[in-house]
Amino acid sequence: MDDSLIDVPRGLAGVVAAETALGDVRGLEGFYHYRQYSAVELATRKPFEDVWRLMIDGELPTPEQAADFSGTARAARVLPQPVLTELPAIAAATAHADSLAGLRVALALACAAYGFAPLYDQDQQQRRKAAITVGAITPVLLAALHRIRAGGKIIGPRDDLDHAANYYWMLTGREPEQCQWHAINAYLISTIDHGFNASTFTSRVIASTGADLGSCVLGGLGSLSGPLHGGAPSRALDTLDAIGTEDRIDGWVRDSVNSGRRMMGFGHAIYRTEDPRSAMLKEIARGFGGPRVDFAIKVEESVIAILDELKPGRALRTNVEFYAGVVMELCDIPRQMFTPTFATGRVIGWTAHILEQTADSKIIRPSSRYIGPPPPQPFD
Amino acid sequence: MDDSLIDVPRGLAGVVAAETALGDVRGLEGFYHYRQYSAVELATRKPFEDVWRLMIDGELPTPEQAADFSGTARAARVLPQPVLTELPAIAAATAHADSLAGLRVALALACAAYGFAPLYDQDQQQRRKAAITVGAITPVLLAALHRIRAGGKIIGPRDDLDHAANYYWMLTGREPEQCQWHAINAYLISTIDHGFNASTFTSRVIASTGADLGSCVLGGLGSLSGPLHGGAPSRALDTLDAIGTEDRIDGWVRDSVNSGRRMMGFGHAIYRTEDPRSAMLKEIARGFGGPRVDFAIKVEESVIAILDELKPGRALRTNVEFYAGVVMELCDIPRQMFTPTFATGRVIGWTAHILEQTADSKIIRPSSRYIGPPPPQPFD
Repeated sequence: MDDSLIDVPRGLAGVVAAETALGDVRGLEGFYHYRQYSAVELATRKPFEDVWRLMIDGELPTPEQAADFSGTARAARVLPQPVLTELPAIAAATAHADSLAGLRVALALACAAYGFAPLYDQDQQQRRKAAITVGAITPVLLAALHRIRAGGKIIGPRDDLDHAANYYWMLTGREPEQCQWHAINAYLISTIDHGFNASTFTSRVIASTGADLGSCVLGGLGSLSGPLHGGAPSRALDTLDAIGTEDRIDGWVRDSVNSGRRMMGFGHAIYRTEDPRSAMLKEIARGFGGPRVDFAIKVEESVIAILDELKPGRALRTNVEFYAGVVMELCDIPRQMFTPTFATGRVIGWTAHILEQTADSKIIRPSSRYIGPPPPQPFD
Repeated sequence: MDDSLIDVPRGLAGVVAAETALGDVRGLEGFYHYRQYSAVELATRKPFEDVWRLMIDGELPTPEQAADFSGTARAARVLPQPVLTELPAIAAATAHADSLAGLRVALALACAAYGFAPLYDQDQQQRRKAAITVGAITPVLLAALHRIRAGGKIIGPRDDLDHAANYYWMLTGREPEQCQWHAINAYLISTIDHGFNASTFTSRVIASTGADLGSCVLGGLGSLSGPLHGGAPSRALDTLDAIGTEDRIDGWVRDSVNSGRRMMGFGHAIYRTEDPRSAMLKEIARGFGGPRVDFAIKVEESVIAILDELKPGRALRTNVEFYAGVVMELCDIPRQMFTPTFATGRVIGWTAHILEQTADSKIIRPSSRYIGPPPPQPFD
């Protein structure tokens, strides 16, 4: 028994693992922010690249800085030739795995092809460049893998399109309509960061060893794929499909709650109020209108009323999953690209956290407590 | 400011992030153990596969259990066809990156090809199978990538050879001599685990989200590649080469210490005594004998004497790096394969920790403290 060990709550809950100037979540107020700005305000009023720069460089850009950052980010969308060559084989080999598995292989290959040095050995400009590169190629890789898997041809990035419009272009071969652009831009911004979640923490742990940026992002992707990390916008949409029609809502929801199944798209670990992302996405969905949106709103109202009745005091509200699925469907984003689209936003947050962590030279390395039989025991 | 946050030492130093029955390091005693057995005793007296089973299943095997485990592990050495097909392209694309970069891509591809489900969705037998598979294919992938990069042909695994002998076979196309087998077997066992190091912690964080086993191991590999994680047996050998001859030892070492350069292969974060791994590897090197070993021992003695003179009270002693390099050189393992050989041992420790972590349903998710300007600030 080592007396110098420090006991804390299980899973390190509430333990301060790092200081950050990148943002925070205020669960009681239903508010989250990127640096000193409301994340929802940024998402609904700024282009993605401006918020990307805010996270990486610490400030919203002036018009000149915005043009400069945007130029850098667009130039970074070009994939290394070995990756382009290998993408069909990667898509084929990962066809039966989950949608992020192909990205993991392709991103590992791209980072090796770029020859990223360990962060520990790079200066600030090299680290920044690597961060922007990974943020820029993630949607390129995801869209290319999707196109190949869907039997189409890869659609390359277009320099004249901004981040959100270009992502839509690479996925569909069409430019988004204005309402689609607004929705995708806002969704991607709203997913950049959200407190110290498990994938962000993973990225920072690896960054604290001084490893290359690609290794840190791969770790984040690994944690993001974990079912306990939560979040799969397609599941909430599957629920809407399963209910089907308005007259079935009440029966379906009561059956579900009574049989102990979790209602996908409802409840959150931190928010005790409405998830501000859900409120934003609901407004965006309302802007599109139509029977699907009306149905989603009816389901939401019924679920909340029934949960309040059957689980009083829990105050379960809609989380980001519910309307994210609805909005992505309205934008014609295929369902298997919902989680990858989420990753396209979140990777920017990881890279910003990785850069911030690298400024701290202290490795994140907790201890463990040995609880097995006392050694040394003889054998043989 | 959130009052519910718990402040702890920077980098979570000393904080208990998990309980483990897998082992521990006693820095003051110069002792480390796997479960209830001395790691050095196991390394010098057991075949690798027995210790592998100890870590995965919790017990040293009976002869029948040993044959069973060994059969399972050898059968798992077969690579999926898409991986075999892609290995030359992966080797070419990662030729200029560090030696673990190719493994990262190939392992990500292999795990996708196997279609590993999230650990959260698997039962104990499926998890165990995935763990053994990753432990079995890691040396196969590393040896194949090495052979391709060195311009040779891939040498496939042989069912009639045990873990250490087969690794040597795949690397060199020769069966090891008895002293080489003993050295490689002991080195691989001695690197399986070593307390709660950063890569082990990373694997457990990802495992705690319920992600697939491949994702957890990729995270561990990422942290292992970080310069602050430490450990690069080739560096200590580079030092021997730089000194060159016995008459230059004293001057070279004094120059080095006086100019503030770190002596590679000396000093350890936890051990205040001799590193037990170093003592074991020194004995193994002595068994080989020869001028290179004599020279290494002279350098060690001089460095310790000079460090005691110039840095009194620090009591810097040889760490695992120093004689690991010497021993691997004696076994004709190429220098660029030193760190990959280390990873071949350590991956077994990661998979055992991943299985142990998965038995705990609590996600490892600490908090952060926001230290930026107070939000929300207006913009525009």
